[in-house]
Amino acid sequence: MRLIAKAIAVTGAALLLTTGAATAIEIHNGSISQDEVLKTQKAWGDALIAISKEHEEKGPDAARVMAANVIDAAYGYRLGPVLFKPTLTQEPQTFRTDREGALAYFVGQNPNYPADTGFALKGWRKVEVNNAAILLDGEYATTLGKVSFTDKQGKVTTVDKSWTFKKDDAGVIRIVQHHSSLPYQAK
Amino acid sequence: MRLIAKAIAVTGAALLLTTGAATAIEIHNGSISQDEVLKTQKAWGDALIAISKEHEEKGPDAARVMAANVIDAAYGYRLGPVLFKPTLTQEPQTFRTDREGALAYFVGQNPNYPADTGFALKGWRKVEVNNAAILLDGEYATTLGKVSFTDKQGKVTTVDKSWTFKKDDAGVIRIVQHHSSLPYQAK
Amino acid sequence: MRLIAKAIAVTGAALLLTTGAATAIEIHNGSISQDEVLKTQKAWGDALIAISKEHEEKGPDAARVMAANVIDAAYGYRLGPVLFKPTLTQEPQTFRTDREGALAYFVGQNPNYPADTGFALKGWRKVEVNNAAILLDGEYATTLGKVSFTDKQGKVTTVDKSWTFKKDDAGVIRIVQHHSSLPYQAK
Amino acid sequence: MRLIAKAIAVTGAALLLTTGAATAIEIHNGSISQDEVLKTQKAWGDALIAISKEHEEKGPDAARVMAANVIDAAYGYRLGPVLFKPTLTQEPQTFRTDREGALAYFVGQNPNYPADTGFALKGWRKVEVNNAAILLDGEYATTLGKVSFTDKQGKVTTVDKSWTFKKDDAGVIRIVQHHSSLPYQAK
Repeated sequence: MRLIAKAIAVTGAALLLTTGAATAIEIHNGSISQDEVLKTQKAWGDALIAISKEHEEKGPDAARVMAANVIDAAYGYRLGPVLFKPTLTQEPQTFRTDREGALAYFVGQNPNYPADTGFALKGWRKVEVNNAAILLDGEYATTLGKVSFTDKQGKVTTVDKSWTFKKDDAGVIRIVQHHSSLPYQAK
Repeated sequence: MRLIAKAIAVTGAALLLTTGAATAIEIHNGSISQDEVLKTQKAWGDALIAISKEHEEKGPDAARVMAANVIDAAYGYRLGPVLFKPTLTQEPQTFRTDREGALAYFVGQNPNYPADTGFALKGWRKVEVNNAAILLDGEYATTLGKVSFTDKQGKVTTVDKSWTFKKDDAGVIRIVQHHSSLPYQAK
Repeated sequence: MRLIAKAIAVTGAALLLTTGAATAIEIHNGSISQDEVLKTQKAWGDALIAISKEHEEKGPDAARVMAANVIDAAYGYRLGPVLFKPTLTQEPQTFRTDREGALAYFVGQNPNYPADTGFALKGWRKVEVNNAAILLDGEYATTLGKVSFTDKQGKVTTVDKSWTFKKDDAGVIRIVQHHSSLPYQAK
Repeated sequence: MRLIAKAIAVTGAALLLTTGAATAIEIHNGSISQDEVLKTQKAWGDALIAISKEHEEKGPDAARVMAANVIDAAYGYRLGPVLFKPTLTQEPQTFRTDREGALAYFVGQNPNYPADTGFALKGWRKVEVNNAAILLDGEYATTLGKVSFTDKQGKVTTVDKSWTFKKDDAGVIRIVQHHSSLPYQAK
């Protein structure tokens, strides 16, 4: 491109070449697109279903290995604390800002987290995300919406969910904030 | 500063002058500090208490005017949709991505939101924020923690709360994401 | 959308409705696209040509008014200091971090900047941008490349130019950094 | 901290404990501070001097090894193209958006870049940065100013320089944009 640019500068002509030059611009796009957000949300749901099936077919050890891999791929614990408030946690272990706490939430089996029964082990068959709104700003995207989980008996659980995603240096999108809660029930 | 810089370039001396020059650098800092986050959280709680007292002393109209001002100052509805999931909302009006929905949540009095009784009108006297973790990244800060509200009878309500703050072009910090939920109760 | 989402949660069906729901997501995109960068660069060149013609047709006062409007629209002086190193400035007024210095550079006529003859008044007829590389990251985009200016005699001047653009709260793209220099000539 | 927060919620007291709790917040700060910018600029100058001395004491091979290490540490070529316009480059190799081009500029010895004589090999003894303005925004900081280089004969070369720094996922600050130019000389 720079050779072509020189030609333009010298001759003052070369409009056709300019088009050629434009295709040679080096572009680095660090921003997350809406499409990437939707795909990342879908991948999160697919992974939850996969852990459920792994558990049913191969048992808790295999499910734990898979869940650890999913957490390492999907969450940003390598980047710093993750602001994770899972749906079903309680005091004094409401928040899971480190990897161990997240893994305990998804597959249980950790005596340090005695209340955790394993959210990913509940026989999930379908996960559906219905976003109300999405904010896109560069490396960050934030979403708010309903997420519905259907188990193998067909029972549907719907939660309110906020996610903040960050595209890391390698271009991989990681969850850095995740607040999930059961819908409020007026008494 | 630039005159001084010239002097340095020409003479190769002037170490003392360098110190003087350093103070003349024009700095624009668009980032939110931890201290600003904590002050903004405190201001949100103080405003909630102020609306409660305004309601008790001057009635619902005055409270609504104050709440509208608080929302305009504290939330980023001017910047786009706000990802707001209040503590006590239900389907089909769970999410309050526009200003009208936020105002209805805080002071009720809106026939379009018949379930809203006015969260800010519940006689609040103390608001306490206990952050579990804070992410700071430029214009954005995200927090996760417990917020406790004490009313005039001394009854305490504690919620799980995520906030994302954005410093706008004018340097004012606005809430652009706010997910609040009652703690999960195992059945 | 939220009404539809509720229907999905209740019935567990409604795949077709999901597509409808997706179109109702509120999206706020604060990021600059490559296309916006290219259009903003072109607008900068068009404005330079327009000031040249205004000067020829209506004189220096009209050119100064137009240039002031261009600077207010294209540069981010309202956001803070702009890191502007124009092509033809010298010590002790090399850098033009405030609006007055930028206006003086483009149209001269300011006794505080006696060396400025008005870069925008040099009879420009064509401006061509050839980017070598572009970085996109949210509100910010940074470009590096050659920019060629052709005057009414057909003489071409080519400079090396870096720009950083920022999309402000209102969605308008502003120049916050601009370093321009004549190509190095080996002696 | 979360155990303490629980105590507060239950008892409604514990103001002293709150102070203790505050110290336990997990903080992740992805933003660059002014101090980090100044240290990074100084490190860049120190590295340039170190390469000059390595060249004089151990020869061109050792200098090239050191320069490669400096580039890998100081520049963001691992993150994408770097928008690098060095002081002394010319068409058709003005811009050095990849690592090879940067290394050739600093130490020469590359037949693909026949005009490069090695800017880092010119016997530098002192590097002084005089910033005119600095923009800080999260992971990014942009600076504009004069940088003066003094060689072993005491000759001073001053350039106009823009830098954009990015703090990467590991917390290391990298140059992603670097435009350097000799001051304009009116004819």
